[in-house]
This record gives sequence, C-alpha cells and structure tokens, in this order.
Amino acid sequence: MAVYTDVSAEDIDRVLETYDIGRARSFKGIAEGVENSNFHLQTDRGGYILTLYEKRVHEDDLPFFLGLMEHLAARGIACPVPVRCRDGAQSLVINRRPAAILTFLDGVSLRKPEAAHCAEAGAALAALHAAGADFALSRENALSLSGWKRLAEAIALHADEIQPGLRELISSTLGALERDWPEELPGGIIHADLFPDNVLFIDGKVSGLIDFYFACNDAYAYDLAVMLNAWCFETDGAFNLTKGQALIGAYQRHRKLHDGERAALPVLARGAALRFLLTRAYDWLNHDSNALVRPKDPREFARRLRFHLGVKAAEEYGL
Amino acid sequence: MAVYTDVSAEDIDRVLETYDIGRARSFKGIAEGVENSNFHLQTDRGGYILTLYEKRVHEDDLPFFLGLMEHLAARGIACPVPVRCRDGAQSLVINRRPAAILTFLDGVSLRKPEAAHCAEAGAALAALHAAGADFALSRENALSLSGWKRLAEAIALHADEIQPGLRELISSTLGALERDWPEELPGGIIHADLFPDNVLFIDGKVSGLIDFYFACNDAYAYDLAVMLNAWCFETDGAFNLTKGQALIGAYQRHRKLHDGERAALPVLARGAALRFLLTRAYDWLNHDSNALVRPKDPREFARRLRFHLGVKAAEEYGL
Repeated sequence: MAVYTDVSAEDIDRVLETYDIGRARSFKGIAEGVENSNFHLQTDRGGYILTLYEKRVHEDDLPFFLGLMEHLAARGIACPVPVRCRDGAQSLVINRRPAAILTFLDGVSLRKPEAAHCAEAGAALAALHAAGADFALSRENALSLSGWKRLAEAIALHADEIQPGLRELISSTLGALERDWPEELPGGIIHADLFPDNVLFIDGKVSGLIDFYFACNDAYAYDLAVMLNAWCFETDGAFNLTKGQALIGAYQRHRKLHDGERAALPVLARGAALRFLLTRAYDWLNHDSNALVRPKDPREFARRLRFHLGVKAAEEYGL
Repeated sequence: MAVYTDVSAEDIDRVLETYDIGRARSFKGIAEGVENSNFHLQTDRGGYILTLYEKRVHEDDLPFFLGLMEHLAARGIACPVPVRCRDGAQSLVINRRPAAILTFLDGVSLRKPEAAHCAEAGAALAALHAAGADFALSRENALSLSGWKRLAEAIALHADEIQPGLRELISSTLGALERDWPEELPGGIIHADLFPDNVLFIDGKVSGLIDFYFACNDAYAYDLAVMLNAWCFETDGAFNLTKGQALIGAYQRHRKLHDGERAALPVLARGAALRFLLTRAYDWLNHDSNALVRPKDPREFARRLRFHLGVKAAEEYGL
C-alpha cells in the first residue's frame, strides 16, 4: 500500500489534455497495490484509476496486459478498461514511469469471503477463461517451474531464517514438482493472481476483477489451484472444504474439468502454494526497511503447502 | 501517506449499519495524511472520507475538531462535514481507534500554487476566521511557544546532525521569540496548518479546506504567517513577493489587519517557520525506519526561518 512515484495535480491536468475524459475534479493516491503507484482520478465524466508501473511490471508487457483487459471487457468481463489517448495510445509516460488510465470499478474486496463468495468468484474465473480464449497475444508464465527454481536458489541460504526447515520444504517440493508437473493440460489466458483482493463485490455479486499484471498463458486448472490457495483456507490454517466445493462447483458449472485436470489438482495446488511462498519469502528477505510496504508473511503459504503435500486426490478439495 | 489501521469491507458494512448514508459501493485506503488513516468511501448516496485517528489526534479533542467543521460548514465554509450516526454521535470506534465519517470534497491540492491561487487561499482564510468567530468551544494551541520549547529541548542534542548550526539557530530564535512574541493580537479560531495540501481547488477557485486537526484558538495574524511560510516560497528558497502580496491583499479585502498585527508579522512568521522546523526536525530524528511515511525535510524551514530573521517590516512580505 503505497505511492512510489508522486504525481501532482499539475501533472494530471497536463496528462488529461491528451485524453478525452474531461477535467480532474479529484485526484488521490490510493494505499493499495504492492507493485505499482495507483491514483483515484475523478473527472466530470467518471471515475478512473491512474497506474504508474514500477519495477515489477515491464513496459514490454503492457500491450499484453492492457490489450487483455480491453479484450476481456469487450467480451463482458467486468474489468478495468484502459482508456485510449486522443491519438489512440493505451499507455503514456508520467514522471519517467510507463502509465495508463483505466476505468474505475465499483465494489469492495472482501477480507473474509464466505462460501457463497467463493462460488461467485469461481464462476467469474470460468467466465474469464472463456473470454480470454480468442485473445491474440500471449505471455509466458514467468512464475512457473523455472521461475520458482531461480527464486528458490536466490533465497536458499536464508530461507531457514524465516522458518526452520523451510529450505528443505522448498527444495523437496520443487524436486517433486519438476518430476510431476503436468504439461498437457488445457490452457489459455489465466489471471494467475485471483486473490480476494482482486475480486470486487457489490451485494454479494462479483462487480469486477482487477490487477491483471500477472496474467499469462498457462493451464486453466492452475488458476483454479491458485484460488484454492487464496480463497479456501481459514486464518487458523485449516482448509475449508465447503469453500472448496463452492469454488470448484461453480467453476465446473461453466467449464467442466477434464480427468487430467482433476488428477493434477493436488500437484497444481502445491505449485501454486510454492509460487506464493517463494515470492513472499523473497520479498521478506529482500525487504528494504525504508520501503513503504510491509512484506506479507510467507509462512502462511508454507502451511498451505504442507497441507497440499498430504492431499492424495482432488476430492479432498471438494471436487 | 499511509494507512496505519486496516479496515475491511466487512468492518465498513457493519459501521454503515449505524449510519443513514446507504451502502458501500467502493472503499479504499488513501495514501495521504501523515497523522491518521484515511479511506475513501463511496456509497449509493455520495462520497465520504472515513478517518481513523492515530497517535497525534487525541480523542478528547474530537468534539472540538468535529464540532468546528460542522459549525464552519453551517456558515458556508467548504470543509468536510462529520456525518452523524443514527443516534446522533459524530464519532465512533473502529478497530480500537476513534473514527469519524466526513463528507468528501471534490477538488485537487496544488503542488505549485501560483499568485492567483495564493489570493484565493488568503480570501478563504479570512472567511474561515470570520465563520469561526462564534464557535462555542476552544482549544489551546499546543504548538505555540511552550510547545516549541519542549520540542527544542527534545531535539537539542541531535539538531546539528540535521544541519550544522541548527541547534544554535533554534535556541537563539526561541530566545528572541520568548521576548518578542505578541500577546494581545486579535484572535479566535485558526486553522494553524493551511498548507497547499489542505486547500482544494477546482478551475482555479477554492473548493474546500481540509485537515482541521491542528485548529485551535490563537492570533489570526499567526494563521496568515503560517500561510506566508507555506505558500510564498519558491523551491529554490526565495520568497515570492508577488505571492505574498496576493495572499495578504486578498486576506485584507475581507479582514483588514490592525497596526499591531502588521508590526508583529515578521515575528509571527519567524514563529511559524520555527514551528514547522521543530516538528519536522523531531519527526526526522525520531523516524522509525519501519514506518510507512517518509519524514519531510526540516531544512526547508530552517532556510525560511533565516529569511524571516532578516525581515525588518511587514512590507517585505508584500503588505
């Protein structure tokens, strides 16, 4: 939660001259988003988010991310839509950062989603997968096996400072995943980070999906495995089977999982837990104490990973 | 710029049940305000700010601050208005912090106000002074002479680490101010912190005054001296006489300064510079590197203070 790069009212007035969305009536930095600087912009035409892309989003990936949101929105997915400048560009440069203006979505993200919310979110994931199927661009998942391997090496020496035994947990899991990772599952565009933070609700219904900056091409069932990790564990660490059933059930009402996907679900869930364990552990160990963001606790995902290691079949997730 | 205390969507839904302002459609932490945690809340009825009061705002002072905003708004000042709960209360407790919901004001604060903006802001200050005249409550200025003395003592040992000579500058200025500080100037409710951050503009006109959490009873001309410090210096450290003239001129069109106020202006300006020098120096030296806020540079106000020490008469400010 931070604004890394400052944008003044004078800057935004200058920027708005190149758009056709009216003049700024209100402009405030938003305390959310770990990766980018975000501002809520209200003009006489509506609400928008201005995002300045910081270190982790590469400028080269912007046509993919912004194009994807435009594509999905055109197919009925409630997601932010990049607003084009008068000259047609989807992004611009502000204070030396690539930046974009996107439409603002109403809705609130839930801290403690209930089973009914998990079902809504599962259905939204299936709709996202369907809508992305004919998107022309593609992007490799930088945070799959080879990316995990690099992260695991980068943190190996200090992993046990986070939690004794973590280095061994990571290396043995990684070894098993390299052996067992499924290669031939149905796939396409996935969100890859559909945590409750990134799903907006109004009156119990999904009103928007946000933060597409990890979106990539990968197995659809991996996206579901990310959501099992992100939506179905209680704060005490227990897996909530009712939520798992709700999530998977609602997803399957729109897109039935193949046998191969069902069989792979425990492995995919381990991979997803490892992915968040690794990025959080890396951020934890490389945290600049002057930074404006508190790193998230990696141990939460070590616990979830240990749960998945004990899962024998997809039925244990509520399938 | 930070959110110190987290408030979830579930929390806000619960809170809104005690108000009559509709249901949350959007709820986001705002990256502004050094003192408190602020959230932008959009309901189906309008826009609001939820503020959770952190360390520096004392719960005992809330009836003064909230009552003052209600009073000023009733007299036509564009300022946030505390929304009362169904039971009439102006404040509540959220996550163990005193909190209030206030109306949201459109407008943007300017990074580099021009002379015309200084004039608008000066006129708004005079209107604020007039509107506050019949407010029933009062609050001592905790950041006047005795407060400065305590801060000066607290930082004395380390002041020269910020800038060589700072300790001597502070102690000699404080000595002179204790001798010269005017006691009998016209006064009443002052804002005491009317920096450009706290004045919102739309199309060059003031659309709102915000952040009343230093408001207190003190000399009106001291409030003007704060604004001379806050609005009329260039980033290169130079005093901009045109801005000073615009500010004081516009103020005087609504409330003419008495002879005693004119004579005291250089002393008041030194006091105001010292006030911000001291609080910034204190925050600089006591900065927790884990904090979410970068402390502001105190040296800016050392430079302004040195300028004021060379001023012989109010005319040099553009009066």
